[in-house]
Amino acid sequence: MSTNLVKRLYEGINEFPIFDPHTHINPQNPSAGSLGGILSYHYYTELCNSAEYDPGWWEEGISPDLLVKRIAKKLPLIHNTVQFSWFLTIADEFIGIPRTELLNPENLERLNEKSKKVMSEKGYIERLIEKSGIKRVYLTNQFYEKLEGFDCNFYRPCLRIDPFSYFADRETVLKDMSVSTGVQIKDSSSFDKALDRVFARFKEKNFAYASVSSWPGTKIHPVENTREDAVIKKILSGERLSCHEHEDHVAYSFLLVAELCRKYDVPFHLMIGVDKDVYSQGVQFGTDLVDSNNSMRGYDYLFNQFPDVRFPTSVLSDTQGLELTSSAWIRHNIFPSGHWWYLNNPTDIAREVSRRLEVVPLQKIIGYYSDAYYLEFILPKFRMYKYTLAQVLAEKIEASKADPNMLELTGDKALETAWDILFNNPQRIFKDTTGQ
Amino acid sequence: MSTNLVKRLYEGINEFPIFDPHTHINPQNPSAGSLGGILSYHYYTELCNSAEYDPGWWEEGISPDLLVKRIAKKLPLIHNTVQFSWFLTIADEFIGIPRTELLNPENLERLNEKSKKVMSEKGYIERLIEKSGIKRVYLTNQFYEKLEGFDCNFYRPCLRIDPFSYFADRETVLKDMSVSTGVQIKDSSSFDKALDRVFARFKEKNFAYASVSSWPGTKIHPVENTREDAVIKKILSGERLSCHEHEDHVAYSFLLVAELCRKYDVPFHLMIGVDKDVYSQGVQFGTDLVDSNNSMRGYDYLFNQFPDVRFPTSVLSDTQGLELTSSAWIRHNIFPSGHWWYLNNPTDIAREVSRRLEVVPLQKIIGYYSDAYYLEFILPKFRMYKYTLAQVLAEKIEASKADPNMLELTGDKALETAWDILFNNPQRIFKDTTGQ
Amino acid sequence: MSTNLVKRLYEGINEFPIFDPHTHINPQNPSAGSLGGILSYHYYTELCNSAEYDPGWWEEGISPDLLVKRIAKKLPLIHNTVQFSWFLTIADEFIGIPRTELLNPENLERLNEKSKKVMSEKGYIERLIEKSGIKRVYLTNQFYEKLEGFDCNFYRPCLRIDPFSYFADRETVLKDMSVSTGVQIKDSSSFDKALDRVFARFKEKNFAYASVSSWPGTKIHPVENTREDAVIKKILSGERLSCHEHEDHVAYSFLLVAELCRKYDVPFHLMIGVDKDVYSQGVQFGTDLVDSNNSMRGYDYLFNQFPDVRFPTSVLSDTQGLELTSSAWIRHNIFPSGHWWYLNNPTDIAREVSRRLEVVPLQKIIGYYSDAYYLEFILPKFRMYKYTLAQVLAEKIEASKADPNMLELTGDKALETAWDILFNNPQRIFKDTTGQ
Repeated sequence: MSTNLVKRLYEGINEFPIFDPHTHINPQNPSAGSLGGILSYHYYTELCNSAEYDPGWWEEGISPDLLVKRIAKKLPLIHNTVQFSWFLTIADEFIGIPRTELLNPENLERLNEKSKKVMSEKGYIERLIEKSGIKRVYLTNQFYEKLEGFDCNFYRPCLRIDPFSYFADRETVLKDMSVSTGVQIKDSSSFDKALDRVFARFKEKNFAYASVSSWPGTKIHPVENTREDAVIKKILSGERLSCHEHEDHVAYSFLLVAELCRKYDVPFHLMIGVDKDVYSQGVQFGTDLVDSNNSMRGYDYLFNQFPDVRFPTSVLSDTQGLELTSSAWIRHNIFPSGHWWYLNNPTDIAREVSRRLEVVPLQKIIGYYSDAYYLEFILPKFRMYKYTLAQVLAEKIEASKADPNMLELTGDKALETAWDILFNNPQRIFKDTTGQ
Repeated sequence: MSTNLVKRLYEGINEFPIFDPHTHINPQNPSAGSLGGILSYHYYTELCNSAEYDPGWWEEGISPDLLVKRIAKKLPLIHNTVQFSWFLTIADEFIGIPRTELLNPENLERLNEKSKKVMSEKGYIERLIEKSGIKRVYLTNQFYEKLEGFDCNFYRPCLRIDPFSYFADRETVLKDMSVSTGVQIKDSSSFDKALDRVFARFKEKNFAYASVSSWPGTKIHPVENTREDAVIKKILSGERLSCHEHEDHVAYSFLLVAELCRKYDVPFHLMIGVDKDVYSQGVQFGTDLVDSNNSMRGYDYLFNQFPDVRFPTSVLSDTQGLELTSSAWIRHNIFPSGHWWYLNNPTDIAREVSRRLEVVPLQKIIGYYSDAYYLEFILPKFRMYKYTLAQVLAEKIEASKADPNMLELTGDKALETAWDILFNNPQRIFKDTTGQ
Repeated sequence: MSTNLVKRLYEGINEFPIFDPHTHINPQNPSAGSLGGILSYHYYTELCNSAEYDPGWWEEGISPDLLVKRIAKKLPLIHNTVQFSWFLTIADEFIGIPRTELLNPENLERLNEKSKKVMSEKGYIERLIEKSGIKRVYLTNQFYEKLEGFDCNFYRPCLRIDPFSYFADRETVLKDMSVSTGVQIKDSSSFDKALDRVFARFKEKNFAYASVSSWPGTKIHPVENTREDAVIKKILSGERLSCHEHEDHVAYSFLLVAELCRKYDVPFHLMIGVDKDVYSQGVQFGTDLVDSNNSMRGYDYLFNQFPDVRFPTSVLSDTQGLELTSSAWIRHNIFPSGHWWYLNNPTDIAREVSRRLEVVPLQKIIGYYSDAYYLEFILPKFRMYKYTLAQVLAEKIEASKADPNMLELTGDKALETAWDILFNNPQRIFKDTTGQ
């Protein structure tokens, strides 16, 4: 594979504006504010926590400044990782710090001070967005959020359903939902009604889709209303659900959400396969893992019941990569979406992109999302993807020259392909051309 | 990897005649008859069905001509796929249509008319076979088929066991078997006897092997005759079997088939891991998927009990790729066979070929089969495989130059390797040198 | 990827001394003694056994000389494998036999005679160690072994726990342990005490770690002492344990071993996922296989309960490759270790190395171990790994030139990376700097 060809393709792809269909950004406070804020992202704290056993080095609520002090000497332990490379790009592109300066732990506190100045300058956010070429940022929102004080065309809300599905029997979720919707939840039909109000309110705010991060072993099956009545009653009593009750409530919720997605004409974005809270000594958000034993078969009923609902889908495990590709190959309502979390490394991205381009109708592929917590992360993460995509396309261009079946893939056609999966497709699949 | 080396290798490999050890071709009607017939292949209908939600665009029994009308505008949605590239090769090589003409939907009806003429010309089939270099075509036959009216040396029958194993309790399978064999099936011993007659008849017709497309979770274990007696009685009563009864009947059938394979000295070809009928809105043959949770461990008893039966084996999921390779590495009676269905894409083929060549005794590897429904598909599918193989071999040639352990792989040796897995091995494993 | 760059990198890496953190070598008889001894290694007998069905060609206890007679004609059947390439390197490097001579079966008996002379010469072992550059060899030892008569700094004992965990209810394991420790095992507390004595004795002999080859489906959970009392009583009665009792005893044993690892400050090396004795016609040690359905989730409790114990971990299946990488990414006490058995081929090594280098803190990665039964195998196996590593690093060097995020990877930096994972990391993780 020619490095020049990769470079040329990358440069072409890198000029595309960014359409980011999944983030965790807070639109009212979208910047990390400092290098310390950047390093508070769990990718850094969890990698440094993993790099050496050092109990007590981190605590919940630690301030970015104190974190910088503590993490500085640990950073060299993760210099090899792609995650660290994102940090270099952020510091370089948005704060103007030469990459090599960041390699020396002794510089970090000083650079952190500098970063606070730059990142609090007037117009910093706008310049960041301009420099990154960001055109759209999808959010992750809880059912009770106000969704006010930001531009709902640029920052599009997305309704996260995990709290009232998987976590409904923890704390006061259903009571909160009663309060926020004005519908007293006491059985399945009032739960339906409350959720309908949530959807209606989100629709007013131009939300893009409903989404969920689903657990391994999830199996969607029909659940009788009377059964769900009993489950909700138990939840309201403050008891934790049994395993079977929990499965039923999750299945009921998924089916209800799918119905509302149909009613409000939005996709249901699935992110499949995370085992929550499995690591006891982890930092915040750094305690979940992937289970290689999981199958998309558990969602067949959901997909079949809602042929008119689009399901953009990500998987957490490489063992589901072929399942996702095959599902997108035959199922009309599955759209392979991005490269999530533990699969978000060049090695795994390259294999999945290559597979998808070979057998999934092109217009169904959603290339990438950043999953970012702060705007700063969008650029380096998209760059990683774009560069990997350029490598895969360069290989396909080379291979196509002597391929006995395929038409020759030209550089221009390769760029069109990239444009489709990075821009056209999410725009069409999420019906998002507002403000273009 | 040098494109020239790949090309040179491919050209060498492409000159090999084709030995195709698994198809679904009807030898009495082996051609698709038209471009519409080609596009009726489920790979096209299912991809177009998947590419956009359009209920009613397809119906069972749709004529090829009407299909062409309906599918023309959808085809551009799958231009990126390898499956579409097979269509280009078919039209180009057998009908003389320049590839670029096929890209415009408006040409399709006209080209379909043209194709009907060419494909109905006298000698078309013979020229197709000559041009493709096809030397052998294995079929997929039901127990009741007549197996007459074709050359049983060129088209070798293969007995499909799915109807009387997995589907025995649907419709009238056992009754049909009673009729077609003249043995009244009423218990396990008459079932044994009837199946023996089927094998005897197939043997007379020079059949190559028995085969099955097995479901995830299949577990072969010994089953008492008295238990099977009861199961058969229940089947004959018209009732559907319970889950456990079904498992037992499948296990009993597999073991019986293996015994008969031993008796009649033919292999038992396993194709492991398809979940049937999971997609409700699918076109015909486009409703099955792969389950990543499956293991070859369920077949240990079968393999161990029949050391003198050869088991050519395909898997449907990449998660079983290493299992298959490892099984072929240590088990003398497992022969990794081809790249099946959802694994039949260059990305997955390349990995599996590379693995197999590294650790499986060379003469055990069965390179490829087309799984074709019409003769026309054999050439493009084999070309895809051969080109991918050329890429893998080119990489190994390059790598071998500085490899501290391996002997240098010369171009000639690489071609010999290709010849072994594409021709010598299937010939030897299926004991098929008749008519050479 | 430039072959010259790969070669240059390989030559650099190949100069490193070898630190081999897992073998099955007998330090009092570390050489195979002859080519026949080399070929007695199960990799050769099992591959030849697999290559053709030939019952009776091998029997347990067959002498190396007789094996040579029998295996000579079979060897060409495995010429394509990487395992055979190790044989070539061994014969070439240590006995001075040109590689091409070994390709002719008729030479083999003569070469075997020659090998016996060379391999029994005075100083052969020392020259082998010198030529291979071996600095450290870790062993696999049973709890009753004497651990005397060899240099415990060069050959470091490692305690294998399989006999008294998975196999405790077979034969007389617990009685043997009572005898060898002087502690009469009759319940959980005496079992604890006996095992503590084993650890104490191994600690005196400078052992490196405790290790286990664990079965698919293993799930570590807390077990009450009273339950374990009952289980041990049943074992002592000579009965085989029920499935649940076995699971409990395994869990109890793992937790006990972890406690003792903490007490004696040694790691607990896990090798996850082997299905024992599944192939009935196999040669010795050639009957185990891999199960693609397995998950590291079964070990969460173990990892969480012992944050201060290091767990170097290997997996047998590619389906656990991402699990291992992700676990090492977030869990501070998981260290991905080498490429085990069915994953020990260049194709799978390349993917796993690439992944690990991208997202696991560098200093946690243990590059490779040979798993060798004789000293002769260490060199060719490490060479295979080193060459594959050189290929991966060459790709990363090339890619880094235009990478928008990563710092350029220089050749020197790549060699440092290799040095870390091959030498520094095992030295630090196993606290092994004695005698350096």
